[in-house]
Amino acid sequence: MTACLHLPLQIASKGNISWDGDISSRRRAEEVLTVDASNREMQQYLFDLQGYLVIPDVLGAAEVAELNRLIDAQGLPSPHESIRFGSAAGLHGPDHGFLNWGEPFCRLLDHEAIMPILRFRLGDCFRLDRLYGIRMHKGQTMGAMHADYGASARNVFTKPGERFHFAPNGIYEGFTVVAWSLADAGPRHGGFWCIPGSHKSNFKLPREIHEAPEKASCVVIPEIPAGSVVLFTEAVMHGTAPWTGDHERRTLLYKYCVSQMAWSRARVLPPPDVTLTARQQALLTEPADPFTFVPSLFKDGVDADR
Amino acid sequence: MTACLHLPLQIASKGNISWDGDISSRRRAEEVLTVDASNREMQQYLFDLQGYLVIPDVLGAAEVAELNRLIDAQGLPSPHESIRFGSAAGLHGPDHGFLNWGEPFCRLLDHEAIMPILRFRLGDCFRLDRLYGIRMHKGQTMGAMHADYGASARNVFTKPGERFHFAPNGIYEGFTVVAWSLADAGPRHGGFWCIPGSHKSNFKLPREIHEAPEKASCVVIPEIPAGSVVLFTEAVMHGTAPWTGDHERRTLLYKYCVSQMAWSRARVLPPPDVTLTARQQALLTEPADPFTFVPSLFKDGVDADR
Amino acid sequence: MTACLHLPLQIASKGNISWDGDISSRRRAEEVLTVDASNREMQQYLFDLQGYLVIPDVLGAAEVAELNRLIDAQGLPSPHESIRFGSAAGLHGPDHGFLNWGEPFCRLLDHEAIMPILRFRLGDCFRLDRLYGIRMHKGQTMGAMHADYGASARNVFTKPGERFHFAPNGIYEGFTVVAWSLADAGPRHGGFWCIPGSHKSNFKLPREIHEAPEKASCVVIPEIPAGSVVLFTEAVMHGTAPWTGDHERRTLLYKYCVSQMAWSRARVLPPPDVTLTARQQALLTEPADPFTFVPSLFKDGVDADR
Amino acid sequence: MTACLHLPLQIASKGNISWDGDISSRRRAEEVLTVDASNREMQQYLFDLQGYLVIPDVLGAAEVAELNRLIDAQGLPSPHESIRFGSAAGLHGPDHGFLNWGEPFCRLLDHEAIMPILRFRLGDCFRLDRLYGIRMHKGQTMGAMHADYGASARNVFTKPGERFHFAPNGIYEGFTVVAWSLADAGPRHGGFWCIPGSHKSNFKLPREIHEAPEKASCVVIPEIPAGSVVLFTEAVMHGTAPWTGDHERRTLLYKYCVSQMAWSRARVLPPPDVTLTARQQALLTEPADPFTFVPSLFKDGVDADR
Repeated sequence: MTACLHLPLQIASKGNISWDGDISSRRRAEEVLTVDASNREMQQYLFDLQGYLVIPDVLGAAEVAELNRLIDAQGLPSPHESIRFGSAAGLHGPDHGFLNWGEPFCRLLDHEAIMPILRFRLGDCFRLDRLYGIRMHKGQTMGAMHADYGASARNVFTKPGERFHFAPNGIYEGFTVVAWSLADAGPRHGGFWCIPGSHKSNFKLPREIHEAPEKASCVVIPEIPAGSVVLFTEAVMHGTAPWTGDHERRTLLYKYCVSQMAWSRARVLPPPDVTLTARQQALLTEPADPFTFVPSLFKDGVDADR
Repeated sequence: MTACLHLPLQIASKGNISWDGDISSRRRAEEVLTVDASNREMQQYLFDLQGYLVIPDVLGAAEVAELNRLIDAQGLPSPHESIRFGSAAGLHGPDHGFLNWGEPFCRLLDHEAIMPILRFRLGDCFRLDRLYGIRMHKGQTMGAMHADYGASARNVFTKPGERFHFAPNGIYEGFTVVAWSLADAGPRHGGFWCIPGSHKSNFKLPREIHEAPEKASCVVIPEIPAGSVVLFTEAVMHGTAPWTGDHERRTLLYKYCVSQMAWSRARVLPPPDVTLTARQQALLTEPADPFTFVPSLFKDGVDADR
Repeated sequence: MTACLHLPLQIASKGNISWDGDISSRRRAEEVLTVDASNREMQQYLFDLQGYLVIPDVLGAAEVAELNRLIDAQGLPSPHESIRFGSAAGLHGPDHGFLNWGEPFCRLLDHEAIMPILRFRLGDCFRLDRLYGIRMHKGQTMGAMHADYGASARNVFTKPGERFHFAPNGIYEGFTVVAWSLADAGPRHGGFWCIPGSHKSNFKLPREIHEAPEKASCVVIPEIPAGSVVLFTEAVMHGTAPWTGDHERRTLLYKYCVSQMAWSRARVLPPPDVTLTARQQALLTEPADPFTFVPSLFKDGVDADR
Repeated sequence: MTACLHLPLQIASKGNISWDGDISSRRRAEEVLTVDASNREMQQYLFDLQGYLVIPDVLGAAEVAELNRLIDAQGLPSPHESIRFGSAAGLHGPDHGFLNWGEPFCRLLDHEAIMPILRFRLGDCFRLDRLYGIRMHKGQTMGAMHADYGASARNVFTKPGERFHFAPNGIYEGFTVVAWSLADAGPRHGGFWCIPGSHKSNFKLPREIHEAPEKASCVVIPEIPAGSVVLFTEAVMHGTAPWTGDHERRTLLYKYCVSQMAWSRARVLPPPDVTLTARQQALLTEPADPFTFVPSLFKDGVDADR
């Protein structure tokens, strides 16, 4: 399992330059820097820097196939009728969503590949706020770029060009989304795109970028092969690039937050037909103060020595 | 004069993908979003986000040629003997540096294209701390990536993986470098590279990236055609990519800082043979408190109504 | 109604100095600076500076008497059996608490004297998290000094002498307590005490102060006559000075927080026997995102022009 | 040598209350919490909280007498002609000031009682920016309350009631003043007064307090017996209470700052007639980058292991 460092330089180049053979070959020839996913320092640096992190090859082909089989078995309507599926809480209302479709969906709730990263983003006590799946067909689009927290958040009202400051009565890095990729996504297909570093922006996203992200050099579409997981803070400017792939986009989104917070009044319910582990159940807690009411999810918690 | 928004998406893709025709044509066909350099909101957003800003086409071909002629006329030693030229202050000691080579070099001190950007980075009162030029030939390298301020600064001593915090007794965005490009630079040639957003990093640059920036997807080499100017904060992780161009790299660096600060004990001296304007002279002030001792460089200063 | 500016200098003087007549008379003679409670700028400055604010003379003698009559009518056990009374939510569990004892208790929920101050501390969208009353008799004490958020919070684990930093994944000024005084409190009687400014502390409270606040010059017991209201952030180091008054201490505490937060899993329930106004009901909302799910409590909300 | 914790509670009480015997005796009887000046944790907490720190009994009676004798020997004009004496740098211009009046004045430059505190405020590399002495006679006043940095600084231009934010291009805790008291000062005499905690204020000082500090409960006049030293950050709102003492006020002010900063263009010159130690000389450095150009003042510097 390797982290997203085996990538070439991001080339910020003029729109009208063409890639000469020399470059292409230099890229292809490139000996890549592979980073073991257990390189926490690197993961923490990159997540802090970019506001997102891609971990490829977390799920094996068999696991991906099984999840897709279970989705197929639901006989869902066409994405043209509904892009989202298996929703729980958030805008959807109280529900168990796709957690009830089988243990493989519940297993992802606290997968070992994501827990250490969620921990250094959200601390020892966090909860699952909501979840849903996404299916898209060629030509479909899905909402505008947005950040849920910070300078460009819809409930913050910063004026264009006015300096935004992070206030002590707001949570900015309170939400981390874990998006499991069940189909290849990336620059050739579409899917998740974002503006790396924008979770720390002190200025509101200019209208020009908001209206035409595809033309902005600061927007990135990471390569996300099937079996990869993307983690991102909802404070980063993010959204969905138009889907141009011939195959169906499939992603499962799990949205976690610090324990004292809730986004909507609805909650994720435990699945009636699937047994959750104690830690998975703990993630479905009502919002409440960390440690005081919500215990650490980790045995080696900072409060261990209390 | 257009700002650096007419760029394609930065593609974060696997090292081994090859660009298929469809993509390439899509890129080439791309209708580009051009932003007038007077779009302050966009400049402020991008500088704040990335820690650097490229403004292409600031100097016309004739201006670039004139500056190069004046450099040629100095009969400088080969870059293999000395990469830097025309230095003043900083590590070099008190000097006027290339400012004495002619008015065209002094004209850049307070060029209208940079003053508004320096203003929203450094405020109304700032000074020129030091300057020097860079020449490089194919195969030459120049130092390691570094940030002069913040988590990875050499005088900060943050431990790897330890969270760094911006303290009230430090200046972090106190220095802005203005680098005038007198020869094409960019991904195909080398030159300025940096890690966008790293000026806000709360963690130290991992050793792996420091030792092999060319393999890190978070490192960017912007396209900087001759006549362009790059502005960057010295708090951003930055450095010089190995020069692979057949032509000589030529860049003029002017380093500005908030008026109450100084990097070294040496100062830039007024050129004996060239007359400076009042504003250019004002930029050569000794470090001192803004407004209290160093007047605003701008007629419409925030203190105008005092 | 006047704010807490008509006070003499806080004298930080040696424990063994005695007040000579000159001083005393100077104090008594002092012409006092009275500030109308509608002086929002002063209230905001003092609350931001000190972490608390006292507004005297908000309730008239008749209102205080009526609230006390309604409390007397409950036939409560002696404070020696239970200091708290009429609790709702928090540690107590779901309840309506003293809100059901009569409209006068509900009227305080969104009293005009506190709403503007809560607004500039918590924004346009906040909720009532919990409430309870306090009765104390001479000689009684009540818990230790504490701060619920920040460097000294019990769930933060800052080491002594180690610099604490406010992180983007925490709320620090999320809770504001409104304490209505139904009996004189202050330096001669005891009651609310705190360390002004400690809500911004970057270091943990030293053990010596925690163990002996009465000996620390940085601890303040504000004068709080019956009918006054004290507002304080739960991020400020605060607690209860031993009660030395001959009369019974009586205080009603209403704890408010930003809408997306909750301290415990329990909620304040609407009182079955008292009709709440629409705004009072709105304060009992489930935690959820401001504006997105929880509407502004103010007609002239920042989102008015949306 | 004891720090300023052996003080009673600061009583925030109504202007017209009179001190009844009970209280007075309770105060007088108070067993005081004495803190050894080597209690760094306490010093750091209190300085961070209040923006100033009083350390009593640093200089013995003989030392104080000697400094006063040396001042007397200068035959200075009456304070009514000039309150300041022995100035160097700052508004005064390049000079050695009272450092040339004898070794006892130079000894205070890096007195062991202040160096550890300056260190945790300014880091390992700092410089002396300027110095002067103050003499005042009964009835004299001296300027208005002010803060040199932050929300209320004269060169910051925050509007009343507008939230101020600490920006990454400013130093806020860059200056620490060390004021040596050669005569008793305090509430009965006048002298140094300040608003504890105001160095962290997010709002500008309201005009009412600026115009009548003596009426504001948030203003403190600490008890400063002869031989004490007061350290305060120039970011805290501070000034001079009218002198009401029958004796002459005498204070020596040494103003230190982080090494990369300077307030004015003038410098403190080494005294021609007194030999400075190496560390004292080091404090007179030109402004320059810490560690890079200005070495640590401490043998156990954080860069020791470089």
